[in-house]
Amino acid sequence: MLSAMSEPKAENLTWHIGEVDRDARATAYGHRGAVLWLTGLSGSGKSTIGHRVERMLIDRGAFAYVLDGDNIRHGLNKNLGFSAADREENIRRIGEVAKLFTSAGIVNLTAFISPYRADRDNARALQPNSFIEVHIAPTIAVCEERDPKGLYKKARAGQIKGFTGIDDPYEAPAKPELVLDTGALSIGECAQAVVDLLRKRGVIA
Amino acid sequence: MLSAMSEPKAENLTWHIGEVDRDARATAYGHRGAVLWLTGLSGSGKSTIGHRVERMLIDRGAFAYVLDGDNIRHGLNKNLGFSAADREENIRRIGEVAKLFTSAGIVNLTAFISPYRADRDNARALQPNSFIEVHIAPTIAVCEERDPKGLYKKARAGQIKGFTGIDDPYEAPAKPELVLDTGALSIGECAQAVVDLLRKRGVIA
Repeated sequence: MLSAMSEPKAENLTWHIGEVDRDARATAYGHRGAVLWLTGLSGSGKSTIGHRVERMLIDRGAFAYVLDGDNIRHGLNKNLGFSAADREENIRRIGEVAKLFTSAGIVNLTAFISPYRADRDNARALQPNSFIEVHIAPTIAVCEERDPKGLYKKARAGQIKGFTGIDDPYEAPAKPELVLDTGALSIGECAQAVVDLLRKRGVIA
Repeated sequence: MLSAMSEPKAENLTWHIGEVDRDARATAYGHRGAVLWLTGLSGSGKSTIGHRVERMLIDRGAFAYVLDGDNIRHGLNKNLGFSAADREENIRRIGEVAKLFTSAGIVNLTAFISPYRADRDNARALQPNSFIEVHIAPTIAVCEERDPKGLYKKARAGQIKGFTGIDDPYEAPAKPELVLDTGALSIGECAQAVVDLLRKRGVIA
């Protein structure tokens, strides 16, 4: 058995030997890491689909996790507001955390409006081969009819300023890997389409 | 099959039904999530031990991931410097990311000097039942003799200011869950002690 004290150089070596690379991790876990970047208007169904896919993946023996407002805005990003700079930093941090999860071999799903194309493209550039952009794209009329948190009503009444789709732009993805119209498809159909895409891309078996 | 469009209220319900709770995740994965917070001087062996434990856990079929300078400083925290406020924010973000990994059911290991007790206690407060503080505690003489990156030499020469242990304090944990003297124990012995502790605490089987 080696003594740590007597092997300062060997210890540096051990660092590298000790690291688990991406392929070894994929072999151990039975699937690769990847991020499903769900983008779309408020009320489009991002979190609902994200959590449904998470459950389907875990039921298949894969490792999955949803990053969304519930676990990010009150934690990692609680010191960010809604200025232009803070919105950009919000998505930047989420993109970096998604990259960490992908490195850890997890199929991670992000469920944020992420309205600006430049921010999403920056997140993609961090992990171009593992980034799967999914546009959750019902019409705004569908989202506004659902209005699960009453936000559209407040935005129409002028009680919320800078609301995406009302008085702030939503820049639709130019080349998303998948488009899902939750106004036409059921949640189950949408989730299945995501799982099918993961299989097609070789992320899961 | 349900139609998303016709069930705005049911969709809210589905959100909650869809969520995978901590127990269901632990059952599916065969272990719980937890953070091993490795703290200690530069050169103490945090990353080396972290990566060795990571490999041992993955070999056992568990899901593990090391957060360290390599994947944090050039990514999530690349917009932070070394001012007092930035150092605090550095550890705050790491604590929040560790919490996300724990929520995802991963045994995560953080390998940062994290010299200030208040910062570590804040990280602990985010997940008190899943926080395992491991003090990697060889003497500073051992660390300085190893000096794998030549940093102690530079600090002694005054080329680096505010270096932990030289001209900046290291506040040792008051009640760590484990203390490992890498000057006396081998890397393998240290890593095994960590794995044994995880078993004893019921994190892994």
